[in-house]
Amino acid sequence: MAPSQKIAIIGVGLLGGSAALALRNKKKVRLVGWNHRASSRKKAAKLLRVAGRLEEAVEGADLVLLCSHSNSIASFLQRTAPLLSPSALVMDVSSVKGEVVREAAEVPGANRFFVPCHPMAGKEKSGPAHADAGLYRGRVVFITPLPQTPKALVQRAFRFWRSLGAVPLVVDAKVHDRQVALTSHLPHLLACALVDLYGAREKETPKLRRSVGSGFRDFTRIAGGNPDMWGDIVELNRNEIRLVLSRYRRILRILEKNLREGRGAFWKGFFQRARNVREKLG
Amino acid sequence: MAPSQKIAIIGVGLLGGSAALALRNKKKVRLVGWNHRASSRKKAAKLLRVAGRLEEAVEGADLVLLCSHSNSIASFLQRTAPLLSPSALVMDVSSVKGEVVREAAEVPGANRFFVPCHPMAGKEKSGPAHADAGLYRGRVVFITPLPQTPKALVQRAFRFWRSLGAVPLVVDAKVHDRQVALTSHLPHLLACALVDLYGAREKETPKLRRSVGSGFRDFTRIAGGNPDMWGDIVELNRNEIRLVLSRYRRILRILEKNLREGRGAFWKGFFQRARNVREKLG
Repeated sequence: MAPSQKIAIIGVGLLGGSAALALRNKKKVRLVGWNHRASSRKKAAKLLRVAGRLEEAVEGADLVLLCSHSNSIASFLQRTAPLLSPSALVMDVSSVKGEVVREAAEVPGANRFFVPCHPMAGKEKSGPAHADAGLYRGRVVFITPLPQTPKALVQRAFRFWRSLGAVPLVVDAKVHDRQVALTSHLPHLLACALVDLYGAREKETPKLRRSVGSGFRDFTRIAGGNPDMWGDIVELNRNEIRLVLSRYRRILRILEKNLREGRGAFWKGFFQRARNVREKLG
Repeated sequence: MAPSQKIAIIGVGLLGGSAALALRNKKKVRLVGWNHRASSRKKAAKLLRVAGRLEEAVEGADLVLLCSHSNSIASFLQRTAPLLSPSALVMDVSSVKGEVVREAAEVPGANRFFVPCHPMAGKEKSGPAHADAGLYRGRVVFITPLPQTPKALVQRAFRFWRSLGAVPLVVDAKVHDRQVALTSHLPHLLACALVDLYGAREKETPKLRRSVGSGFRDFTRIAGGNPDMWGDIVELNRNEIRLVLSRYRRILRILEKNLREGRGAFWKGFFQRARNVREKLG
């Protein structure tokens, strides 16, 4: 009979809480959670057993899922490395990977226990109250290993994500950051910028609210994301975001020019092309 | 006993088809539809009785719901005015109102039968196959009357939209166009521009698709809209759209500057403000 496995979830918010829900009915899993703030530990306790101290959660864990922001990963690894069992696997779930890989690689021996991950899963609502056992089902999870990570360790990360129904994929951290700059970080900035403009105009024209339809709601939904998390993401991936924002602004400049000059043929082609690309995304 | 009412729906697509579904079980309503193309008439016939000729649909109608693009309204009014009964009410549902009001006001007597309307209802999918009897329920319908329209005529338009569960509101056509430039037309351009950039990058990097999450899908959903309709909207409301796009581009320029200079405090404030505004929209 296989021995039971201790899984520690550090940071029980939406992502950590959803993992807890997906794992808590599995056989031979001892689940323990921890949150930095006492108030958050209280909320987490509705989903899983919560340790009183971080050390208690991490000690002897076979698997640690670290659900905190990208800029806190390296210091966590440094602090907890001495407590980990020799066979422990630590994974994070943060959104920017280049900096995480660079900083973690400076923690001695981290490549023997730490595998950086980024699940493409989320909701506009954060916090454990919105946790969902099916959050990872069918979602891509990017895995961006440190240099010279043992294959077996990466394979364990793979198996973990598959057990939650996710689709793990190994990718270079820089490639990852460039891609999510376009597909996740830029859209977030664009939605926030529109909401910003809307907010300014609504002050002048309170009735503006009546003109908000479902399209505007869908388009701006992502602007409801956690401001602290997004501050960190932008800080850590600002070079890639800046490049793609600059390309995007060039497109808008062309659109403004065509609005000024009123070219029917340009617009029908532009909208047709966009619809074609969009339809393929489903 | 009140006599039965003939309602003609000209252009049975998503909006016209949804009105047909909402109306077809009402008592004392004789519903008839018409589409320009024979193939569209065939599709429409699944929802309501379809006339062979436009004249047949319109003649003797008490109410005509004209569901075609903004730039075709005035010529329709000109063509059909002689066929209408003296008590007929004609409404359109198109997205830009300033031009419609201006052009319709030049059609002799149009203010005695035509009330321009714009329901804030839609889906990313067009066509009668996606029609939905509940499409108008709870949705705002802007009414932008021509100069010197009899109050009783506007009231009939009100009652019609209320009977579909919608929330009619009278507004000045110019104010309407300015507001939807921000809440509908600009988001559409922004989504299409992002999809355009995505399409160009996907050609270089086919694996980019893996980085597309639900946020990107929500954000770009509106880019699936009908290219012809959007070409017309942009053409007719280009001045208002240009003004709001120009303001939006100024915000993006500030964001790019802050990405270059890496200011944590700016970003947290920016994201917090956006979340506050977004949360109020529900």
